[in-house]
Amino acid sequence: MTAPVHRPREGTPDTQHGMRRRNLSRVLHAVAAEGPLSRAAVAQHIGLTRAAVSTLVDELIRAGLLEELGPQRPGGVGRPGSALAVSGRGPAGLGAEVGVDHLAVCAVDLSGTVRARAERRVSNRGRAPGPVLRELAALVRDVSTRAEAEGLRPAGLAVAVPGLVARDTHTVVRAPNLDWHDTDVAALLPVDMPLTVDNEANFGALAELWLAAEAPADFLHVSAEIGIGAALVVDGQLLRGTRGFAGELGHVPVRPEGPACPCGGRGCLEQYAGEEAVLRAAGVEPGPDRVSLLAERAAAGDAATRRALRGAGAALGIALTGAVNLLDPRAVVLGGALARLAPWLLPALERELTRRTATPADGVVVSGLASHGPLLGAAHSVVRGVLDDPLGAV
Amino acid sequence: MTAPVHRPREGTPDTQHGMRRRNLSRVLHAVAAEGPLSRAAVAQHIGLTRAAVSTLVDELIRAGLLEELGPQRPGGVGRPGSALAVSGRGPAGLGAEVGVDHLAVCAVDLSGTVRARAERRVSNRGRAPGPVLRELAALVRDVSTRAEAEGLRPAGLAVAVPGLVARDTHTVVRAPNLDWHDTDVAALLPVDMPLTVDNEANFGALAELWLAAEAPADFLHVSAEIGIGAALVVDGQLLRGTRGFAGELGHVPVRPEGPACPCGGRGCLEQYAGEEAVLRAAGVEPGPDRVSLLAERAAAGDAATRRALRGAGAALGIALTGAVNLLDPRAVVLGGALARLAPWLLPALERELTRRTATPADGVVVSGLASHGPLLGAAHSVVRGVLDDPLGAV
Repeated sequence: MTAPVHRPREGTPDTQHGMRRRNLSRVLHAVAAEGPLSRAAVAQHIGLTRAAVSTLVDELIRAGLLEELGPQRPGGVGRPGSALAVSGRGPAGLGAEVGVDHLAVCAVDLSGTVRARAERRVSNRGRAPGPVLRELAALVRDVSTRAEAEGLRPAGLAVAVPGLVARDTHTVVRAPNLDWHDTDVAALLPVDMPLTVDNEANFGALAELWLAAEAPADFLHVSAEIGIGAALVVDGQLLRGTRGFAGELGHVPVRPEGPACPCGGRGCLEQYAGEEAVLRAAGVEPGPDRVSLLAERAAAGDAATRRALRGAGAALGIALTGAVNLLDPRAVVLGGALARLAPWLLPALERELTRRTATPADGVVVSGLASHGPLLGAAHSVVRGVLDDPLGAV
Repeated sequence: MTAPVHRPREGTPDTQHGMRRRNLSRVLHAVAAEGPLSRAAVAQHIGLTRAAVSTLVDELIRAGLLEELGPQRPGGVGRPGSALAVSGRGPAGLGAEVGVDHLAVCAVDLSGTVRARAERRVSNRGRAPGPVLRELAALVRDVSTRAEAEGLRPAGLAVAVPGLVARDTHTVVRAPNLDWHDTDVAALLPVDMPLTVDNEANFGALAELWLAAEAPADFLHVSAEIGIGAALVVDGQLLRGTRGFAGELGHVPVRPEGPACPCGGRGCLEQYAGEEAVLRAAGVEPGPDRVSLLAERAAAGDAATRRALRGAGAALGIALTGAVNLLDPRAVVLGGALARLAPWLLPALERELTRRTATPADGVVVSGLASHGPLLGAAHSVVRGVLDDPLGAV
């Protein structure tokens, strides 16, 4: 697992203070990823002396981020040392998700364990942002209270939305399937803690990077709820784009003279592989839990549904050929609803990629996180913020 | 201008030694970019104390990288201080370019000035790599000798090639317009200095980043000689892709059922906007200096040539719509041959981008470096290597 650490900005000088902060982060990351670990094992892991590590460890214990489990003999070899673990009563990251059909919130501790969770099925399409976000805030308070009852301190909240979020802001510029435009989530969400807001595909990709067993450091993560989004991870970092709008795979032209798209273009990928297009091609009425319905019909051998998913897979393959040619990712990961429909999408998708010779090194893989990715990615992004800058959190 | 500095790899600890190396780099970058500067101005520029900067400056002077110009009063304000400049007799970067129709080499000093240059018109298409690279080596020796006669020390050679180069190797995996396959340039190029090899579009983009007056830190650089290449700069860094193959814009599908492409795909951008496709559409015979011929005919109002360039511009616009949707760059920069043909390509290109609603924030701009980009980018990459790690070079 990669362990990105807090780095000074370009142009800021290196100082003793900055160096100490970065080394505290390295210690905390090492214990979170590999713990429990003895002080000696931490020292070996990050390449600092035992003495330097002990000073850093003491500081992290005082800050309530690490705890000592008492004398142990890790692995049964060498001198007994007190094993260190991240605190189960320290900071927690809260993640929230605004879906078209649901709201969800969870709390994750420093070890990555989900400690509390709440979800509500509710149709948010066309609902005004205010009531949706007030309902979300109630779930946040519920989860927050339960986390505090277990001794955790919520360190911040990250909210995943199915739309474009302007970079470094809390503003949803456009979420077509919610019908939100220029919605300032910070102004409408009555919670009192540090807040970040990002696109659900971005958080889904980060979850894949941080939580999947063998995630590559470079991949293109494609996900779908109603629309089709993508996120690019390069060298273990999300590529956000200048305005925060990178990853709009759904509006890559597949057939330039194809059907008009609400975005203003023609023949965009969503016109062939978006949920509405697939439902229409399969002759399925829009309704609740549409993805399950498509999966059931395809599994039962329904010819129209299978044909619709083959067409969607081929269109995905054409759009991904362009993306793979441009980005040369190690893998393409299918997440969200696409993961559940993968058995019927993949053959046509991979056939297009192969005949167009743009197959990524590790091929196309299906996410094990599927639709849980965005919520987990959001909560973990807060946890990673603590690991990256331990002193900023206390 | 951004000043990227040498950074420790993920997971390596910060040390006093590493910190000193990075601060030496900051001082040298500041003087190279903004000099001549007094020690006090350097200190202010990079945010370290005057005393710390003086120690670093003394070390860079001893290493022959900086020189004192004698007592001056920079800007006429404050105490007189001895102005510092990068050495005009220090390390030099050598850049070389293997084109389809030419070979070129140049030497650039730490201040960015081209101090020697050699070029030869020669048709390299279908020629074996050995003779081409021996001829290139003779030009390298010529330029190197002239640079040494001016007191410069060549610090390394970077070679730009019109093909895919496997990341962190010297191997040209595929250069269709030279007909090179799996060519190890290091084994065939008889020169005795540190060598890097990269795609010409990558070096062209780096030249744009480092040398253009107001280059954004995020852009998509599109260039063409015979084929169409692109390079992506994100946060001031080149996005290379897992295998080093990122930027294959020429093989993004424009019309998925279009003409077969030698790459194995169908309807790739090169089938509409590659040089051969444009020459054919314009009714122009392939021959030497084809781009000038196209530009002349278009300027003279030749209808077939103008129609061919409009078609190429529209195809570029469709492929770039996908790229802009995926990457959200601040700008698209047209370089290489495309820069010279921009007056006739741009209207159709921008019309497609606009109607497909994927226009980048700063629009489409034409490179001022045009076909000089790759050679300059190669030479400057060696110079940047010295600025990024001054002690590695002495």
